[in-house]
Amino acid sequence: MPEPSKAEYVVGVDLGGTKILAGIFNTSYDSIGTAKVSTKAQRGVVTVISRIERCIRDAVDEADLNMKQVAGVGIGAPGAVDFGAGTVIFAPNLTGWKDVSLKKELEKQLGVPVFVENDANIAVLGVHVAELKAKPKHVVGIFVGTGIGGGLIINGEPYSGFNHTAGEIGHMVIDINGPKCGCGNRGCFEALASRTAIFQRIKAGVKDGEKTLLTDMLGPSLEDMRSGDLRKAIRRGDKFVSKIIEQTAEYIGIGVSNLVNIVGPEVVVLGGGVMEALSDEMMSVITKTAKDHAMPGTMKGVEIVASKLGDNAGITGAAVLARRQVK
Amino acid sequence: MPEPSKAEYVVGVDLGGTKILAGIFNTSYDSIGTAKVSTKAQRGVVTVISRIERCIRDAVDEADLNMKQVAGVGIGAPGAVDFGAGTVIFAPNLTGWKDVSLKKELEKQLGVPVFVENDANIAVLGVHVAELKAKPKHVVGIFVGTGIGGGLIINGEPYSGFNHTAGEIGHMVIDINGPKCGCGNRGCFEALASRTAIFQRIKAGVKDGEKTLLTDMLGPSLEDMRSGDLRKAIRRGDKFVSKIIEQTAEYIGIGVSNLVNIVGPEVVVLGGGVMEALSDEMMSVITKTAKDHAMPGTMKGVEIVASKLGDNAGITGAAVLARRQVK
Repeated sequence: MPEPSKAEYVVGVDLGGTKILAGIFNTSYDSIGTAKVSTKAQRGVVTVISRIERCIRDAVDEADLNMKQVAGVGIGAPGAVDFGAGTVIFAPNLTGWKDVSLKKELEKQLGVPVFVENDANIAVLGVHVAELKAKPKHVVGIFVGTGIGGGLIINGEPYSGFNHTAGEIGHMVIDINGPKCGCGNRGCFEALASRTAIFQRIKAGVKDGEKTLLTDMLGPSLEDMRSGDLRKAIRRGDKFVSKIIEQTAEYIGIGVSNLVNIVGPEVVVLGGGVMEALSDEMMSVITKTAKDHAMPGTMKGVEIVASKLGDNAGITGAAVLARRQVK
Repeated sequence: MPEPSKAEYVVGVDLGGTKILAGIFNTSYDSIGTAKVSTKAQRGVVTVISRIERCIRDAVDEADLNMKQVAGVGIGAPGAVDFGAGTVIFAPNLTGWKDVSLKKELEKQLGVPVFVENDANIAVLGVHVAELKAKPKHVVGIFVGTGIGGGLIINGEPYSGFNHTAGEIGHMVIDINGPKCGCGNRGCFEALASRTAIFQRIKAGVKDGEKTLLTDMLGPSLEDMRSGDLRKAIRRGDKFVSKIIEQTAEYIGIGVSNLVNIVGPEVVVLGGGVMEALSDEMMSVITKTAKDHAMPGTMKGVEIVASKLGDNAGITGAAVLARRQVK
């Protein structure tokens, strides 16, 4: 009989367009050490891979452990990922990432098994296992940040479809004549409800003479605005920002209703930076709008919840992915 | 060893709001006898169930067979269906249908096993097995008729989600400020691209003074207009109808793109009465619009096809359902 492995920890990595997060997790999915480095995507693929490696080693060191105690590494990457091959097929926000053998490269550098999946699928897996205790069979995850990402759990497993691109909910058109999206179409979900869209509407309003506390807080050009600033403004009674956020919550509610109608999940979980900062302000409007719009019967018993994992959903899900593969 | 069953045929039933279709099928899914009766939904549940029974017996008789040669019956019903329980949970187009034990009732009357599923799921199953030879793993079916229904094949199996309502694509909002839908919302897919929506746009245009051959063909009030009339008008050079149908094809293309982004299918199959009449006129615009709108990578290798089964998709799928359960 083989001796039980002493490598009882797993590392989860969230590879983003601007930053890389890594966390080392025990068997209960408690994070016992984390690290963060900027991605420096413009420096190209080789640099980013070595920065991922450094971030992983930093997280392990942070927990006073070493790589021999790590059974495996999971990575969530922003784009289409072929899980079986361990390659990133393409990643629009990472310069030059096309058919990159991330698994193979990192395994060479780290000497442990590496597993790669799409970041939104990974995040919803993290929420599913660590927050929902893997109970619901079908889950839709909606992550609202710079853009809007989506991840699906179908029959208890992450689902990515034929081209490994399922869950690209950010480019679901919900307003055919709406504002132009970065992708070239009009009225995509993320052109209406992402942080980028919110900030654009606020800046356009200020230009048109709308009064807001944000200009007192950040100056007239609203530099370095963050989602948390909006929360502060709303709590101090800022009517303009309240209106923009309520409108955004309605858009998200319609997105939720579309996804419930199509996918039929048991739980819809909302996460990402915007939700982390503003869920108290948005959740009741999101839920009401979704229930008003969904077809009769589709919403019965369906839970719409804000994730408590926040920015850690990605690294947690990546850890779950690694743990499932190595055990 | 038990003697092999002599009941080698199965019956498929398509229960619609206005008509009931039944077909008896051999093991190769060739239809060897069909029957059709009107639903008479307004007469209530008991009447409709006895009409289903009569339609089944008529189809069996049409093929010079008897019920002893039937191994099972499959039924596609328009609404939310609990396959396991064999009940129709609700069916908006059938008066009084709420928690109806259709399986149990019909088994009592027919003496053979009965299986019930949602009609759009059944139709996509029919196309998947009889037309696509069950090859693609993930399929989205879009059925454009009076309304728009959708059915999903995920990992090779019909998928209906938590509340048995997945695939309610007709009420996906794609134009938040668009025309009012029967469901109360604005800009649902079926408020833009169903036969009902097409006819409304044509009638509104005629009221506004648009010239069309349809008024010569059907009289000024366009009574008894059918999808086939639109095809005839277009082939005779009717510019107004061409424009309406092109616009409708663009809406359908955007619906396809949304569904490809979200579900990630290998094949999108379009069926229903409108597609049966107008697929030659619409398919190239649908495909182009879908490819223009979908995210890079999501459409790679994805086929968008018009079903050749037409109105028989429902009874064929119901036969497949029955066959899979009894064999």
